[in-house]
Amino acid sequence: MSTLTQSKAEMLLQSLGGLKTNMFNRDFLLSWDRNDDEIRAVVDVAQLMRDMHKSGTSIRSFETGLAISLFRDNSTRTRFSFASAANALGLGLSELDEEKSQIAHGETVRETANMISFLAETIGIRDDMFLGEGHKYMKEFGDSLQEGYDNGVLHQRPTIVNLQCDIDHPTQSLSDLMHLKNTFGSLENLRGKKIAMTWAYSPSYGKPLSVPQSIIGLMTRFGMDVSLAHPEGYGLIPDVIEQAKKQSLQSGGKFEVVNNMEDAFKDADIVYPKSWAPYNVMQRRTVLLNNNDKPGLKDLEKECLANNAKFKNWECDEKKMKTTKNGEALYMHCLPADITGVSCEQGEVSKDVFEKYRLKTYTEASYKPFVIAAIMYLSRIQDPIQKLRTMVETNKKRSI
Amino acid sequence: MSTLTQSKAEMLLQSLGGLKTNMFNRDFLLSWDRNDDEIRAVVDVAQLMRDMHKSGTSIRSFETGLAISLFRDNSTRTRFSFASAANALGLGLSELDEEKSQIAHGETVRETANMISFLAETIGIRDDMFLGEGHKYMKEFGDSLQEGYDNGVLHQRPTIVNLQCDIDHPTQSLSDLMHLKNTFGSLENLRGKKIAMTWAYSPSYGKPLSVPQSIIGLMTRFGMDVSLAHPEGYGLIPDVIEQAKKQSLQSGGKFEVVNNMEDAFKDADIVYPKSWAPYNVMQRRTVLLNNNDKPGLKDLEKECLANNAKFKNWECDEKKMKTTKNGEALYMHCLPADITGVSCEQGEVSKDVFEKYRLKTYTEASYKPFVIAAIMYLSRIQDPIQKLRTMVETNKKRSI
Amino acid sequence: MSTLTQSKAEMLLQSLGGLKTNMFNRDFLLSWDRNDDEIRAVVDVAQLMRDMHKSGTSIRSFETGLAISLFRDNSTRTRFSFASAANALGLGLSELDEEKSQIAHGETVRETANMISFLAETIGIRDDMFLGEGHKYMKEFGDSLQEGYDNGVLHQRPTIVNLQCDIDHPTQSLSDLMHLKNTFGSLENLRGKKIAMTWAYSPSYGKPLSVPQSIIGLMTRFGMDVSLAHPEGYGLIPDVIEQAKKQSLQSGGKFEVVNNMEDAFKDADIVYPKSWAPYNVMQRRTVLLNNNDKPGLKDLEKECLANNAKFKNWECDEKKMKTTKNGEALYMHCLPADITGVSCEQGEVSKDVFEKYRLKTYTEASYKPFVIAAIMYLSRIQDPIQKLRTMVETNKKRSI
Repeated sequence: MSTLTQSKAEMLLQSLGGLKTNMFNRDFLLSWDRNDDEIRAVVDVAQLMRDMHKSGTSIRSFETGLAISLFRDNSTRTRFSFASAANALGLGLSELDEEKSQIAHGETVRETANMISFLAETIGIRDDMFLGEGHKYMKEFGDSLQEGYDNGVLHQRPTIVNLQCDIDHPTQSLSDLMHLKNTFGSLENLRGKKIAMTWAYSPSYGKPLSVPQSIIGLMTRFGMDVSLAHPEGYGLIPDVIEQAKKQSLQSGGKFEVVNNMEDAFKDADIVYPKSWAPYNVMQRRTVLLNNNDKPGLKDLEKECLANNAKFKNWECDEKKMKTTKNGEALYMHCLPADITGVSCEQGEVSKDVFEKYRLKTYTEASYKPFVIAAIMYLSRIQDPIQKLRTMVETNKKRSI
Repeated sequence: MSTLTQSKAEMLLQSLGGLKTNMFNRDFLLSWDRNDDEIRAVVDVAQLMRDMHKSGTSIRSFETGLAISLFRDNSTRTRFSFASAANALGLGLSELDEEKSQIAHGETVRETANMISFLAETIGIRDDMFLGEGHKYMKEFGDSLQEGYDNGVLHQRPTIVNLQCDIDHPTQSLSDLMHLKNTFGSLENLRGKKIAMTWAYSPSYGKPLSVPQSIIGLMTRFGMDVSLAHPEGYGLIPDVIEQAKKQSLQSGGKFEVVNNMEDAFKDADIVYPKSWAPYNVMQRRTVLLNNNDKPGLKDLEKECLANNAKFKNWECDEKKMKTTKNGEALYMHCLPADITGVSCEQGEVSKDVFEKYRLKTYTEASYKPFVIAAIMYLSRIQDPIQKLRTMVETNKKRSI
Repeated sequence: MSTLTQSKAEMLLQSLGGLKTNMFNRDFLLSWDRNDDEIRAVVDVAQLMRDMHKSGTSIRSFETGLAISLFRDNSTRTRFSFASAANALGLGLSELDEEKSQIAHGETVRETANMISFLAETIGIRDDMFLGEGHKYMKEFGDSLQEGYDNGVLHQRPTIVNLQCDIDHPTQSLSDLMHLKNTFGSLENLRGKKIAMTWAYSPSYGKPLSVPQSIIGLMTRFGMDVSLAHPEGYGLIPDVIEQAKKQSLQSGGKFEVVNNMEDAFKDADIVYPKSWAPYNVMQRRTVLLNNNDKPGLKDLEKECLANNAKFKNWECDEKKMKTTKNGEALYMHCLPADITGVSCEQGEVSKDVFEKYRLKTYTEASYKPFVIAAIMYLSRIQDPIQKLRTMVETNKKRSI
């Protein structure tokens, strides 16, 4: 590693040394269930691993071991981020494809959790389709792993990484946080910065709420001025709103909910325009999906698309961007974005705005593999700081 | 490793040293094709690897190399056991998905076997759907590998691990044997113990015969008192019955076939209640499947389910369990079980009995990754005992 | 390694030392875009890696890193060759399954290329279905990777390996070249040898042109006497024909296009009989496929099969083989072949001829994993010769 990288590594290790964390053998499900030091530890370890990777240093931490992924919804980015993180740590990837197995509800979650985990270190789960189910499923999965471990069935307690549930998408919001940290210089510099997490129009419906929830559930912890904007009726889960309010008070920041995009954009340092379905629509949709009520789903889609269409002006365009701080707010998106005239006729963001920030959104996404690797590492390595120090000092190269 | 683990490891290595085996470069297809020392070698190596894994020691044995799996039927447990075993030994996993390739019968088995094997160490195959075909397919596959190796096409002879065929399911029965060994203290302690391998009612039909066949084909070698119970007409492959009889005589055990569950359960030390389709039904089904005769298959299903329904009282319940040795027989199952009131209305086992033994069935399953790893190891490493000794002495940790 | 292997290794390293190559960080898309020294470097490195693998030596070159494959068409051989190469170098395999993701055209190729590549070393792509698209797609993919790398999104520039496009199939033709080199003793010995790349009858239509194009596009560079034979109307892409002519002139070889199999076979040292669709049929088919015009496709298939049927005598049989050099030409095929009386009623090759050369075609295929590994290696390792020398000297075993 270069001298620069090495002195930065030393700073990160010192910072890590001062944090009080309790992450070993514990699942990472909701960011707001982890204390501030634990959030900082993830960010620091992810940054260290990213710097090491950039300088060609191996961050391999396991001789063998499995990282298992369970995707109950399509995914490219998160799938590859998980695969990348697992591989970088030396873990082998196995995907649990429910179509190729026979996994039902109730009794068998307990069984499945144990059956796949005899040699597993970590399990990544995406389950974001049904409101009220994804997080519950992960909890049940984790409880089953704990039961197996406590009763000697499992030699080790694999830990779950939430790769998006119905409530939170912590590996996304933590990647976004790292992007903000690197853009503005430090977490401390985020204090007072205004971030507009706003709904935007999309020609589809039924997009999960977890991204906006993950953003307001994380950024309110850093003294930021968080403005959540959406048309009336497009609210998020009330408990998450309460959590954001509470955190904002504690951190000395601000949190507001407004009903137009313009208010949120005004003087914003950061804008995050992104479509989602209204909370109550997701509730109705979950009932219909569970009943496999296809005509009902069709009717709901029609109703929602018609409702969405009233808000086509909720687009992030150059005019709105001009009203942000110096007309130069940082545009963010979890990707893929619905880009007007590119991926759809009318979407979340104009072509010009997206193109201007396109490479920055790629960089924003580039943190995710390291965030996942950091969570895996901190939950599976008992003395992480000492081992990271050894890793930095050994400086083994990725290419042999 | 702890001192305890190390002295246990030494005992296992000494035991292994005394065994006469000829497993290098040879496929593992039917347990009864391997001599007693070879069975013991698999059990000892699997035990050693399990102990090492538990103590955090790496059992990595390959720098690189492929383990290929070919599943012609759905699977969760065995799929993950194979993936776990391959990863623990340092092999990369590649799944041969026949839907994504173009593999036909006859000529091309020879070709496929060679085409996928240039850098392969081992190939796991599950092919249990058609009576008379799975084992035949594995033999043809193995012959093709041998031809390729003998003619210099392949640098090395990858070995096949039978992950369940129409005749045997040796990695299941060997895991079960290890569970018995650890429950009763030693293989020697199994002498005279009564095991009831009995048919049980299930609301499905067409379940393979390979599990009960694998159990009677293995447990009769250890002087056990093996009682096979099934309703009239639910017989197994006659050749396997003959093999079991012969082995029972040689080992000084007992083997009986009875037609009611109660007789088998009486004073049993171990019960293994599990549904399967009658042999002659599987024969008729194979013909219908080969002819793609859908109405015929529907009629057969109807007939069989009606026939099954006559035997709904073949359930492992508390009342029957009370008749076993001290009312405390060990309940076993290869999982997933059809549990009355949980996974079906009426099934193989009552909810109470299953719940009592649930975690034990998980432990039973936990041996399979190590059984598979042991078979891979013994068939691909030329001087296994010496290398295992080095592995124990080096004591490299799984987490770096 | 044996002394023989070691002295052969030394020769290959010396040969490599004299070559002028510029392959680091560059995609391998068309063989004729690489200079003669680069082609020789791939052949030498592949040969060295194959010899090392055969002697049990590890060619692992990476601690961690991903090799990503993207197959837009079914594949067994190339899929496993890619998986084998990746594993042998120490890379983890991740398959990008477009059905499990949401990848569209235009904008998102750029995005996808970056999103999957944060920790990737190399990306293998097969895209051979649409004339005019596969190669174009790979170029766009490569340009997107370059943009990401140049703008700091990617820490490293993953390189693309063309696993078959609409124009070329370089890993196939390079494997074939290695087979010829090892059969005839050296690349120099190929000078003046006659190779008959001829169309052959098959009861299917729509087979890609890339194999015959890859053969004439590579073998014309070695002073060979290349005879391309096909029925009138079954021509290849005109640009590739021009390229072959040009190269043939430069290398002092011969290149002819004839319209009967007999002329091509006469006195040939090597015959490569293989079916393909006519260039103009592929053009019409591409339009129909893009329009999803199913009746049109059906009509085209009917027309083409009727046309094919006029040329059933284009079969490689014993009679035609007798007319080759001493009646003993080397038969080659990329596999799977359409074998008369085995995989079809009437096909590309008679059963007797195929059976005589069957194991040789397996050997021909066995070079492909090493060709792919060599391309990955040369495009991702900055000082390949020095590192290969160290690898030879260290002589680390594959089995630990």
